[in-house]
Amino acid sequence: MVESYDVVVVGGGISDLGDVESTSTTPVLSTGSHDDDGRNDKNKQVNYVDVGGAYVGPTQNRVLRLAKELGIETYKVNVDGYFIHYKWGKSRQFVSLNPPTWNPFVYLDYNNFWRTMDKMGKEIPPEAPWDAPHAKEWDKMTMKELINKICWTKAVKDFATLFVNVNVTSEPHEVSALWFLWYVRQCGGTARIFSVTNGGQERKFVGGSGQISEKIMERLKGRVKLERPVVCIDQTGDNVIVETLNHETYEYVISAIPPILTTKIHFKPELPPKRNQLIQRLPMGSVIKCMMYYKEAFWRKKGCCASLFIDDEECPIGITLDDTKPDGSFPAIMGKKKICESFAKAMEMEEALHPVHYEEKNWTMEQYSGGCYTAYFPPGIMYSYGRVIRQPIDRIYFAGTETATQWSGYMEGAVQAGERAAREILYHMGKIPKNEIWMPEPESKDVPSRPFTTTFWERNLPSAPGLLCLLGSTVFFTSVTAAVLFACKKGLLIRN
Amino acid sequence: MVESYDVVVVGGGISDLGDVESTSTTPVLSTGSHDDDGRNDKNKQVNYVDVGGAYVGPTQNRVLRLAKELGIETYKVNVDGYFIHYKWGKSRQFVSLNPPTWNPFVYLDYNNFWRTMDKMGKEIPPEAPWDAPHAKEWDKMTMKELINKICWTKAVKDFATLFVNVNVTSEPHEVSALWFLWYVRQCGGTARIFSVTNGGQERKFVGGSGQISEKIMERLKGRVKLERPVVCIDQTGDNVIVETLNHETYEYVISAIPPILTTKIHFKPELPPKRNQLIQRLPMGSVIKCMMYYKEAFWRKKGCCASLFIDDEECPIGITLDDTKPDGSFPAIMGKKKICESFAKAMEMEEALHPVHYEEKNWTMEQYSGGCYTAYFPPGIMYSYGRVIRQPIDRIYFAGTETATQWSGYMEGAVQAGERAAREILYHMGKIPKNEIWMPEPESKDVPSRPFTTTFWERNLPSAPGLLCLLGSTVFFTSVTAAVLFACKKGLLIRN
Repeated sequence: MVESYDVVVVGGGISDLGDVESTSTTPVLSTGSHDDDGRNDKNKQVNYVDVGGAYVGPTQNRVLRLAKELGIETYKVNVDGYFIHYKWGKSRQFVSLNPPTWNPFVYLDYNNFWRTMDKMGKEIPPEAPWDAPHAKEWDKMTMKELINKICWTKAVKDFATLFVNVNVTSEPHEVSALWFLWYVRQCGGTARIFSVTNGGQERKFVGGSGQISEKIMERLKGRVKLERPVVCIDQTGDNVIVETLNHETYEYVISAIPPILTTKIHFKPELPPKRNQLIQRLPMGSVIKCMMYYKEAFWRKKGCCASLFIDDEECPIGITLDDTKPDGSFPAIMGKKKICESFAKAMEMEEALHPVHYEEKNWTMEQYSGGCYTAYFPPGIMYSYGRVIRQPIDRIYFAGTETATQWSGYMEGAVQAGERAAREILYHMGKIPKNEIWMPEPESKDVPSRPFTTTFWERNLPSAPGLLCLLGSTVFFTSVTAAVLFACKKGLLIRN
Repeated sequence: MVESYDVVVVGGGISDLGDVESTSTTPVLSTGSHDDDGRNDKNKQVNYVDVGGAYVGPTQNRVLRLAKELGIETYKVNVDGYFIHYKWGKSRQFVSLNPPTWNPFVYLDYNNFWRTMDKMGKEIPPEAPWDAPHAKEWDKMTMKELINKICWTKAVKDFATLFVNVNVTSEPHEVSALWFLWYVRQCGGTARIFSVTNGGQERKFVGGSGQISEKIMERLKGRVKLERPVVCIDQTGDNVIVETLNHETYEYVISAIPPILTTKIHFKPELPPKRNQLIQRLPMGSVIKCMMYYKEAFWRKKGCCASLFIDDEECPIGITLDDTKPDGSFPAIMGKKKICESFAKAMEMEEALHPVHYEEKNWTMEQYSGGCYTAYFPPGIMYSYGRVIRQPIDRIYFAGTETATQWSGYMEGAVQAGERAAREILYHMGKIPKNEIWMPEPESKDVPSRPFTTTFWERNLPSAPGLLCLLGSTVFFTSVTAAVLFACKKGLLIRN
């Protein structure tokens, strides 16, 4: 353990896990800004509430290990009951990943969409998506273009749009196909990223995820300094001078803020050209997270788990989950803005119109977050600029969930990135060998992952256009066969 | 005239016209950073050279008026001789807007490309592109998608890509179709933006464009303060506190830096959500501008004007222009990096391999420019966020060429924007009526514009697929007619 101020972590605030996760392996000093309405709100109507990152699940082994070290427990999000898919004014109950459909073409189209996304994803190396065989081509395409190529039916195109919206809080026409395919892949594929059970939304932390930052801060007593937005990093001398409202010098800097927020810092000397342009090109997503509180969890009585997929242009909400506390207290539904009517319509339960309390967090107005959950890559950026995202610049090292290679965009990615950046510095100090910079993580025993299996039919059923082709060919060959048989019978084909 | 420090202009540097243009109508204080290798380099090999904004032309009446007021003259860029289009290892000489072609389909495709771009552009209001009838749809498309829709031949697709590259220093797959169509339209259309004679590249300033900033700075003696990167703007009190390396207070602030550079400033209170997200979403283009100097203007001897269109993926250069001084001294060609071999290949003149001097400016490495020439809009941003681009925030007003409605991206746009922002403040102070905020500009007498006329054929020739349709229909009807005639002749059609 290094005891002096030789490393400083620049973070956007304690609400941003990006700046504290690395503290478990290497000492850091957080210069984050004070963020009194940050990740973890507390008041008597809600007890506590995660207005930022909240969910964890299998394969997110680093954040699970870190939480356990700090004595924070997880509980499973309630999925006891049916899910609801609300579309065109109608609610349909269902239990699997796909919304229910009676149309075989739509069924084939759903199946083909998930299958194709995962197949393309498998071509993309999580640690170097710019090296994928089709990287250059896919990065020139938006997800809107890719969805239009893969999907045939409006139902599936709309659902694919919702899938992009809820996973990366941006629109399919805004993001690069290469980046989104990589994003889903490095979380373990479509089923892992999207599922509650056995997926990214399986659990939450008892007491709220904000405790992770708080407990690390306690352990570092006094070394996490609040209200210190960094305005200047000067690497021209022997030590790195980090300017906030005061002056301090360090040997190393870990930048754990989203790339776009590093534009808030004036660098001496200037950043290299590629990074100077990269940091302008990674905007943060847009989301208002909100929680609606009710007198009781009325949905549970009716066999619904409050997981709603709302697929309606007029409605500002995409997906909801039950946000009731593990002991059943503070019944609540987590979703987005203007939601009371949507809840009532989608669940067909009048009770949804009578909440007792409401909490929201508009991440787009946060200067020191820029937006949420994570940065997105517009078309053309990942291939041309992405490769410098983790490249140190002299004594500045880069952490933050955007620089992770697994569960990037999640708390798990923030932990991976922070620990890797800390070990890059330890390596540079001569304290660990190079092959210890990137460390694998043993699987969590408390939250083991199960593989997602696909059935023979899911793997081999044709796509919707494939079926049409097949039907067409069948009709053609049947007709030809019938004609030949008919001709034979009538003796029209004469054998020599 | 207001004499006290009641307005401050925040500028990225004196190399950035955005911070000084408004000084002609309202008093300002520039807090720009010192930029000693800025817009106007001077040394004995080149005399002076514009490494930043350089060209002006008809309809850019504001910057022409301002330059005249300051006693700066213009001269015409040399176009005496043939242009060269270099593609697939071959050079072709030509004199019009389109590269030469013997293929009628390619000719129709060029014609249809320019015509369609201008027709779509006419639907877009320069002052509110987000209100165009197809704004939402076009903003979801990249220029790559639009080019693929409009163009049929590879030759024209490649040239259209070059057209995007050289006008906005970014790639067709990176930029929104709505934004690019608007960009071309607000400069007066494809012919105006792309032409040398009668277009945006007709003239340069004798002595260099940097003189505009320098002469304004002289007039404002002492009020332009250098080396003052702004780190904080605090509007929470009665006066606006602008923090640089010192503290100063003002009543109004004009932000004349590119939108992405306002992320370098810490705002109190935080910016409104839409602007907080907008400023993350407008990256600067990427360009290295360079000038190659020769012992003599060898191209002129051979009847070439050194205007090259280099359409070659391997070659990092797009377009060049003669950069010789108006008196014929300092013979030079302006272009981009790694250019000696390209020049020689394209012009088929061995002399190009023997320059006597070289100057370049890599705009992507400039912290206080972020890139050049201007900010671009990735897909989806203009429609959803663009409308706040000029909206004042309390006492901060927005100038900079990105906020202009005519020749945005050019020096002319910077002048329009700066003067408009200054008048917004004058209106707010009660010194001018509201209808004087946006002022039309009389046409420059020295540099009048001539309309671009199209011929009957240019307007009415079919597109390449249109011709195919026409040919198809003609063949079909001819065949039918022939068949009918034949049938009549043979008496196969029996009249009752």
